[in-house]
Amino acid sequence: MVDEEYPLLTDKQVEELKKKAELPAKLAVALHKFYQGKIEVIPKCKIEGLKDFAIWYTPGVAKPCKLIQEDMQKGSLNAAYEYTNKWNTVAVVSDGSRVLGLGNIGPEAGLPVMEGKALIFKYLGGVDAFPVCTNAHEPEDIIQFVKWLQPSFGGINLEDISHPKCFEVLDKLREDKDVKIPVWHDDQQGTAAITLAGLINALKIVGKKMDEIKVVLLGAGAANIAIARLISKAGVKVENMILLDSKGVLHPNREDRFLLKEKYPQKWYYATHGNKEGVTGGLSEAIKGADVIIACSQPKPGMIKKEHIKSMAENPIVFALANPIPEIWPWEALEAGAAIVATGRSDFDNQINNSLGFPGIFRGTLDVRAYTITDEMAMAAAYAIAEVAEEAGLHPDRIVPTMEDREVYIKEAVAVGVKAMSQGVARIKRTKDELYEMAYRLINRSCSLVRNLMENKFIPPPPADLPQL
Amino acid sequence: MVDEEYPLLTDKQVEELKKKAELPAKLAVALHKFYQGKIEVIPKCKIEGLKDFAIWYTPGVAKPCKLIQEDMQKGSLNAAYEYTNKWNTVAVVSDGSRVLGLGNIGPEAGLPVMEGKALIFKYLGGVDAFPVCTNAHEPEDIIQFVKWLQPSFGGINLEDISHPKCFEVLDKLREDKDVKIPVWHDDQQGTAAITLAGLINALKIVGKKMDEIKVVLLGAGAANIAIARLISKAGVKVENMILLDSKGVLHPNREDRFLLKEKYPQKWYYATHGNKEGVTGGLSEAIKGADVIIACSQPKPGMIKKEHIKSMAENPIVFALANPIPEIWPWEALEAGAAIVATGRSDFDNQINNSLGFPGIFRGTLDVRAYTITDEMAMAAAYAIAEVAEEAGLHPDRIVPTMEDREVYIKEAVAVGVKAMSQGVARIKRTKDELYEMAYRLINRSCSLVRNLMENKFIPPPPADLPQL
Repeated sequence: MVDEEYPLLTDKQVEELKKKAELPAKLAVALHKFYQGKIEVIPKCKIEGLKDFAIWYTPGVAKPCKLIQEDMQKGSLNAAYEYTNKWNTVAVVSDGSRVLGLGNIGPEAGLPVMEGKALIFKYLGGVDAFPVCTNAHEPEDIIQFVKWLQPSFGGINLEDISHPKCFEVLDKLREDKDVKIPVWHDDQQGTAAITLAGLINALKIVGKKMDEIKVVLLGAGAANIAIARLISKAGVKVENMILLDSKGVLHPNREDRFLLKEKYPQKWYYATHGNKEGVTGGLSEAIKGADVIIACSQPKPGMIKKEHIKSMAENPIVFALANPIPEIWPWEALEAGAAIVATGRSDFDNQINNSLGFPGIFRGTLDVRAYTITDEMAMAAAYAIAEVAEEAGLHPDRIVPTMEDREVYIKEAVAVGVKAMSQGVARIKRTKDELYEMAYRLINRSCSLVRNLMENKFIPPPPADLPQL
Repeated sequence: MVDEEYPLLTDKQVEELKKKAELPAKLAVALHKFYQGKIEVIPKCKIEGLKDFAIWYTPGVAKPCKLIQEDMQKGSLNAAYEYTNKWNTVAVVSDGSRVLGLGNIGPEAGLPVMEGKALIFKYLGGVDAFPVCTNAHEPEDIIQFVKWLQPSFGGINLEDISHPKCFEVLDKLREDKDVKIPVWHDDQQGTAAITLAGLINALKIVGKKMDEIKVVLLGAGAANIAIARLISKAGVKVENMILLDSKGVLHPNREDRFLLKEKYPQKWYYATHGNKEGVTGGLSEAIKGADVIIACSQPKPGMIKKEHIKSMAENPIVFALANPIPEIWPWEALEAGAAIVATGRSDFDNQINNSLGFPGIFRGTLDVRAYTITDEMAMAAAYAIAEVAEEAGLHPDRIVPTMEDREVYIKEAVAVGVKAMSQGVARIKRTKDELYEMAYRLINRSCSLVRNLMENKFIPPPPADLPQL
């Protein structure tokens, strides 16, 4: 069992944390109200006068329609990609059932997050993303909804859907022959890709190898299940992994084994294929001698204690990814001997931040018109992310880049596009240089566009009386 | 029966028509390829640096999410309208089953049209519209899809859905208690509103009254059924209407009366409630003594012949709305004695153009956060459109404004918003002045925005070697 008792924060720490959280929240309320939405839909073609509507609308538009129809009859989507914005458009689909740390708040209440996601898609990846919050809640309904939603989009980004239904939704959509565009669940694959990037560099620093390490995964939700799969593809042996859920270590003799087998096949897989030593109990038992702990569990410090870290192998690596409060504070982990600590927070070093992934991953996916995003493409992104950090100089405090490293998105896009082509899941071929140029151009255009709109007051300045962040 | 034989165009006319159609089609292909889509999704809030993501995304965004959730729990959508772009966002939903005159070309092939619609929504109405082409084709599937799609949107614009399913889809969605936002089918209500606007002014010019005229409606598809309903609400007596479908006049003793009754209740209604004289046969029988003919049938000239016009009452009014080829050429109708002729084409006077309606109608609907668009709101729009034309000076060649009259959208928005409030279907109250100011500001912003983007080359100029329209 994960221990219930944990060291309380000092009063000063609590005070500081609260204060830190207050300002963004206060500004968010004031500025969401001021801007009344974070994205808009605008023309991107010339309109010199209303006569141009004869080109963009009837009668002229009939011709591109016909060309797409003819192409579709031959089984090809290429004309759709060429004559419309489908090639660059992603739906951010959520039922609002697990939004941030807020839980099941519903699709309308999830909309600010999905708009924010669309904002980041454009600003960092040059991707036109549109928030599609849905009233479909049952897994089979979400699947049906996405299948009906496809034609306008070049990709689907599932977001903030609770587990275990998110597994079923993602897996079935990825396997469905009627789904012609890539479907990605960022809380699974995105988090996994960035974590893998961090792990790659962390292992380089401590001089350990993927296929030799023992990894403990605390939490068996969407993120950690996806992380387990991706790091195993990257070389970590499944038998050397131990997963824990809220009831403790996953092993084949758990009291709830029949439930696990039936309802949580992913957990059952790791209960039976991982944990070769047959550990039972809680984190204290699991973590002994582990090289790495990856925690995506509950946002309270003390889920991992100093003693846990002390019982790990030499130079332990700690990913404490719960948000907003990591399972152990970085300073505590370091005091207890951790060689490297990563969290989900932007105010500590080594932020495992999904925003490092999806903008570049979708950029590369869209640029080769891929019809899926394979695990290998996600791994290619992870290696690209790791490389950008390495080029800047490896250091225990800098195992992943920050969002300021614009280069990371471009390199990811190239790596993902190249991998898609080599795996035969791309609809078109582009050279590495073409992919680089395309990503560079589209991503930089977004940033200049926002600058331009602010300079020309199409995006007005915020009220002057608001405090600065 | 509608006569099968009709006067052929002269060779010269055919040549000219072909040539006229060629250039927009040629430019449409070249320019759709050049711009690769007509709309994009961009940030509309300030981004001074990546630290702003702490406001627009986690952790700050959690607070607006919570406020929306709390508000929803009280049964209110107001916070959703205040903290997100829902208040200004419309989905253009089509299954591609009846696109322009192209028929059932499918959702992907319909995408250029839906993007074009979104373009017009923004440019003329300041509305953020997003094309949602769907694989849902059965009426109950389209209904389910739209219900699932709601949360991100402030309204739904159904488009290019074939009849009779479009009737069922629209009616059921408008009646459904779970649908919290307005649903509009532009091919029904939009066309009806503009036609009514034209009819209002045409009757003023010839000095006839709504409740005295006899109206023949040629074609009993989505448009004419909706026109019949709207003009009857505006005063035309149903008993004074005769509708015709491809099998001739609708009357209670038609051979296919059982099919009509069961499958086409709308047609059956006019067969039994209209046509008080009990006319049978075809257009020649129906049109004798009629004051107005409204044709939304098949795009071929000669559907209406000169002799038909000659048999009408004094000062006949002719709406020949089939696109791209009206049921009778305007010059023929005028030669035969028509007082006023309107078509669907931009190259003749009196274009009955849906683009005169939906941008302003949705602007007004959104600005009071209405939860439906009633027929009375559509009529209010029609009267506003008619008024703008009247203020410019009534003339048989100018019964409706052209799209250049920007004022029309603003006045429609005000009229529609005011009507919504007076009918109790608005979520918020605004004064007439506030509605005017809001519509004026948002519509003008769109145009300046496009100008700015073109000047700064974010919208690049088209290739120089293309001919001008």
